Amino acid sequence: MNFHTRKWVKPEDLNPNGTLFGGSLLRWIDEEAAIYAIVQLENQRCVTKYMSEINFVSSAKKGDIIELGMKAIHFGRTSLTIACEVRNKLTRKTILAIDKIVFVSLDGKPAPHGKTEITYVKDRLQ
Amino acid sequence: MNFHTRKWVKPEDLNPNGTLFGGSLLRWIDEEAAIYAIVQLENQRCVTKYMSEINFVSSAKKGDIIELGMKAIHFGRTSLTIACEVRNKLTRKTILAIDKIVFVSLDGKPAPHGKTEITYVKDRLQ
Amino acid sequence: MNFHTRKWVKPEDLNPNGTLFGGSLLRWIDEEAAIYAIVQLENQRCVTKYMSEINFVSSAKKGDIIELGMKAIHFGRTSLTIACEVRNKLTRKTILAIDKIVFVSLDGKPAPHGKTEITYVKDRLQ
Amino acid sequence: MNFHTRKWVKPEDLNPNGTLFGGSLLRWIDEEAAIYAIVQLENQRCVTKYMSEINFVSSAKKGDIIELGMKAIHFGRTSLTIACEVRNKLTRKTILAIDKIVFVSLDGKPAPHGKTEITYVKDRLQ
Amino acid sequence: MNFHTRKWVKPEDLNPNGTLFGGSLLRWIDEEAAIYAIVQLENQRCVTKYMSEINFVSSAKKGDIIELGMKAIHFGRTSLTIACEVRNKLTRKTILAIDKIVFVSLDGKPAPHGKTEITYVKDRLQ
Amino acid sequence: MNFHTRKWVKPEDLNPNGTLFGGSLLRWIDEEAAIYAIVQLENQRCVTKYMSEINFVSSAKKGDIIELGMKAIHFGRTSLTIACEVRNKLTRKTILAIDKIVFVSLDGKPAPHGKTEITYVKDRLQ
Repeated sequence: MNFHTRKWVKPEDLNPNGTLFGGSLLRWIDEEAAIYAIVQLENQRCVTKYMSEINFVSSAKKGDIIELGMKAIHFGRTSLTIACEVRNKLTRKTILAIDKIVFVSLDGKPAPHGKTEITYVKDRLQ
Repeated sequence: MNFHTRKWVKPEDLNPNGTLFGGSLLRWIDEEAAIYAIVQLENQRCVTKYMSEINFVSSAKKGDIIELGMKAIHFGRTSLTIACEVRNKLTRKTILAIDKIVFVSLDGKPAPHGKTEITYVKDRLQ
Repeated sequence: MNFHTRKWVKPEDLNPNGTLFGGSLLRWIDEEAAIYAIVQLENQRCVTKYMSEINFVSSAKKGDIIELGMKAIHFGRTSLTIACEVRNKLTRKTILAIDKIVFVSLDGKPAPHGKTEITYVKDRLQ
Repeated sequence: MNFHTRKWVKPEDLNPNGTLFGGSLLRWIDEEAAIYAIVQLENQRCVTKYMSEINFVSSAKKGDIIELGMKAIHFGRTSLTIACEVRNKLTRKTILAIDKIVFVSLDGKPAPHGKTEITYVKDRLQ
Repeated sequence: MNFHTRKWVKPEDLNPNGTLFGGSLLRWIDEEAAIYAIVQLENQRCVTKYMSEINFVSSAKKGDIIELGMKAIHFGRTSLTIACEVRNKLTRKTILAIDKIVFVSLDGKPAPHGKTEITYVKDRLQ
Repeated sequence: MNFHTRKWVKPEDLNPNGTLFGGSLLRWIDEEAAIYAIVQLENQRCVTKYMSEINFVSSAKKGDIIELGMKAIHFGRTSLTIACEVRNKLTRKTILAIDKIVFVSLDGKPAPHGKTEITYVKDRLQ
């Protein structure tokens, strides 16, 4: 699991109870997963097709820094399956986990992407 | 299933491919489900605890009107389970469905809410 | 008057005094009225032409759930006139009322829409 | 009429028809009128109480620069009445006009503000 | 230095420490500088090319009204250089200053704009 | 230089010319730099104090994926200085670079943070 994107929980991200709004978190996850899929498949035309069940394990509060982790777990012919974990950057406490997010590579209709393994993992420290 | 909240898909809601951004849609669903839970449980302190798997059946495009449907399907002691369907308002085509969204009623820790059935369904036309 | 769309007043919707920002409320009303007009006229190209005077009767605070009510009151040849009321979902207290919001149906220039009565009111419970 | 605040119409401000979304424009007006009231009354606790009828005279498109004009036209004991005009900065074409926007100065309940004339008009060029 | 656009610091503009988020302030400055450049050069196709160093002199808090001042200081052949100051509208205290913001006028590639002096300063009070 | 946070350029991030709005980019940089400072100093109360000159080297367009790189270059007694580079994730082309962004650690007034070197670089792959 690689943790790239981080978010600083600001007042605009809170629900009326003063904790991180679940809808904001889901929005961040969908964008980060799309980025991960586009980078792996080298194809900008990817769309979310499926998410497996989501457990909201713990919450986050104003000022927390959270990080979004993604990992490719299956390369289908026209799809990519990603596992996701969101955690508190400083405490490492899990906030949410999704076993499978499936992206489909499109070219009008679902298009074969020709990838079979993770290709972009090494470049982050270069 | 009652369809209350509607959205007009505006440029700010699109992904770079020009269709409705999945993250925006998930944000709308989480807010509408929270509203449904608060209204049924008459308790503003409700948080999303779980979502079952999500199928993105079809997409929406700029200018489409979509409507969000919710229905309470189980009243637990401290929780409420909701089914959700999102569809195109004019064509009735399903965009997305979620079998179970679970909200927990909080009072510091999960608190019994004392509800056992849908109470707010009738008032919409009054 | 039918009340469809609901909003949960979140921190991002507040003015610096901690109550619902009037500008956010007006933005929600304009979108909901546009949706109502598009659905009734079955024409996506509708624009706001006029609003009659607006009384801000009461305010809303963080965590409140408000609902937006619309009703077609006149079908002109190229226009639709809508009455609007916004109220607190739980207390039923009126927040704001607008007697007339006029939408014009466009097709380059104002175009006859051919509608003379409310056609979409029944479908909500189906 | 003094024209202070300007806006650059960006993609995020458009409706699905590709013109300036009326709701965005109303949000901008409410903020600018509140600023004008706060500056004149030297009191941060001001709320919108009333708007007279609004004519949407012309629209704006992506890339246009619009400017918001405000002018105090009546100082009541606890209120301030403002006239508003929005126009295209370069063509001077009127986009929208509102004869009266009434703000009330609050201190828990409506509070006398002690102002009887425009006091902040001169300072802009200093 | 002319101070046109004003902002009311709302909850959505705050960082988690409860003061004005620097990123929001930079966003406002870039838009206002672009507007200033477009108005002076009478060309909508202007892009930010350079900013000199930025000192965050003081902060702002919820409810403050701030104003953004811009002044053209150099007309190049294809560029315009602007000085910027942001201050608290009521206290006149400086929040931030930038000596030079350079915009380039584009027409595919950098294009001569033919302007050599400030032309739009007088029209504000007309 | 470590590249963590990535962004997908969506319609909401564009200026009217259809390229990435400079103000959006600056907002993203300020948040990412704040996160970097908070993580290194293990102190949530950090504020931006200074940015050195900014060169907008190239632009980005809708659908591009950009990544934000940060590196601590100096630990002062109460401050942290960070170098920043933003680049296109796929082409590696530089979009913008800032030599120095200075954050100050606050505890009411500037507070010593006791850090003298980068401590959080190794943990990303664990």
